[in-house]
Amino acid sequence: MKQNIYDDSDFAKGYDNIRKEGKGTNANDLIEIPNFRKMVPDVKGKTILDLGCGYGENDKYYKEKGAEYVLGIDISKHMIDEANKENKVDGVEFEVLPMEDISTLGKTFDMVISSLAFHYIKDFDKLVKDIYDILNDGGYLVFSQEHPNITSFKPTENMPKGHIEVDGKYYGVFSDYNRLGTREMNWFDKKVLKYHRNFEYIINTLVKAGFTIEEVNEPVPSEEGIKINPKYNNQFDRPYFLIIRVRK
Amino acid sequence: MKQNIYDDSDFAKGYDNIRKEGKGTNANDLIEIPNFRKMVPDVKGKTILDLGCGYGENDKYYKEKGAEYVLGIDISKHMIDEANKENKVDGVEFEVLPMEDISTLGKTFDMVISSLAFHYIKDFDKLVKDIYDILNDGGYLVFSQEHPNITSFKPTENMPKGHIEVDGKYYGVFSDYNRLGTREMNWFDKKVLKYHRNFEYIINTLVKAGFTIEEVNEPVPSEEGIKINPKYNNQFDRPYFLIIRVRK
Repeated sequence: MKQNIYDDSDFAKGYDNIRKEGKGTNANDLIEIPNFRKMVPDVKGKTILDLGCGYGENDKYYKEKGAEYVLGIDISKHMIDEANKENKVDGVEFEVLPMEDISTLGKTFDMVISSLAFHYIKDFDKLVKDIYDILNDGGYLVFSQEHPNITSFKPTENMPKGHIEVDGKYYGVFSDYNRLGTREMNWFDKKVLKYHRNFEYIINTLVKAGFTIEEVNEPVPSEEGIKINPKYNNQFDRPYFLIIRVRK
Repeated sequence: MKQNIYDDSDFAKGYDNIRKEGKGTNANDLIEIPNFRKMVPDVKGKTILDLGCGYGENDKYYKEKGAEYVLGIDISKHMIDEANKENKVDGVEFEVLPMEDISTLGKTFDMVISSLAFHYIKDFDKLVKDIYDILNDGGYLVFSQEHPNITSFKPTENMPKGHIEVDGKYYGVFSDYNRLGTREMNWFDKKVLKYHRNFEYIINTLVKAGFTIEEVNEPVPSEEGIKINPKYNNQFDRPYFLIIRVRK
């Protein structure tokens, strides 16, 4: 089943709030977005498909960086409505579509990007194959997801979070790293399913589909970012995200 | 400086003992060796260079699997002496040589293999470039090392090991994952230096040298292996090793 949490109105409200209230100081803005953008090659004159585009900030950004055309898709009507309000510019389109259905689009792209969405997708093999098919030769896929050290963790009563402090030092805690599959988490009182995959599975699936691994990034904030939110010093201990660029 | 712990006689004695006493039930025999061998392509008619060959078991094994010639090198004279005693067969040679100096060999190979040695090497970039240069076109590098989740950990008094148990459940503990560099450990009362590198660094270094990433393995024991030593069920929580195959 395709998961569409963002159209639940309580969830959407909660999510809109953290994104807006934390603007400029949250992990997306200080860690994921700047590092993701460093991993994306020159977009000048390129056509781009953005999977799970959310509010569509990346789509407007890449259009302004010179992309010819950007299509952002998202399973959530709420997200696409917000994207159309906030980030619709000439040459950018938004469409309600689950990324599981991209083969129905009937066109190909020079680049596929996806930010923090793949860990919600059940069938990674099919997704990767569909992306390979929708890319023009030499095309790139750049995606970010939660780091496998994070997705692996299964919370329990006495170990509710994937980190502990001992003598003031921050440690990451993980388990079940090589037990792939679903992880249930609560977010704004809603049950959200994530899918844990280890490095082995992620890399081998990309290679088997025909992609060449170009670059891997386990992002940390900039010095400037640490000043804005010192808690993200913890990214040197335990990165939240993983970003990968591959080429067809 | 090149690290040669295995020629310290106390260390060598301790190491010889765990390898011999634990024969068939230790992590090498149940986890690393079988998975490493699955990652190595057909060796028939190939020339192989084994970096940090130790006792030379792999070298004899691959000769028997049809390799034309296998050269095992190790920085430790003790190890090469043992290898010559235990695993010297026709078409296999052993030589005392630090892997940092392979460019002095003056010949090329179809395959380079290395089992659990790279995390002792300071300059991974140079090593990877030297391996690229010593490989024939289309040649393979297959290597295993301690998993980055393991090498990252820095022991302290109140967190001496990279794992804890809570309510009978095993958890991996790590820190400093994105702080690359030296880690000091004690092994048989000797100080041993390991070098921690994250996935990003390992993969990107291989790619930048010109290699194509072919397969990644975060090994677990077989069902049979778990029966022999049930403690290695913990590999499903926290793999000890990482194995990678790349191609020139």
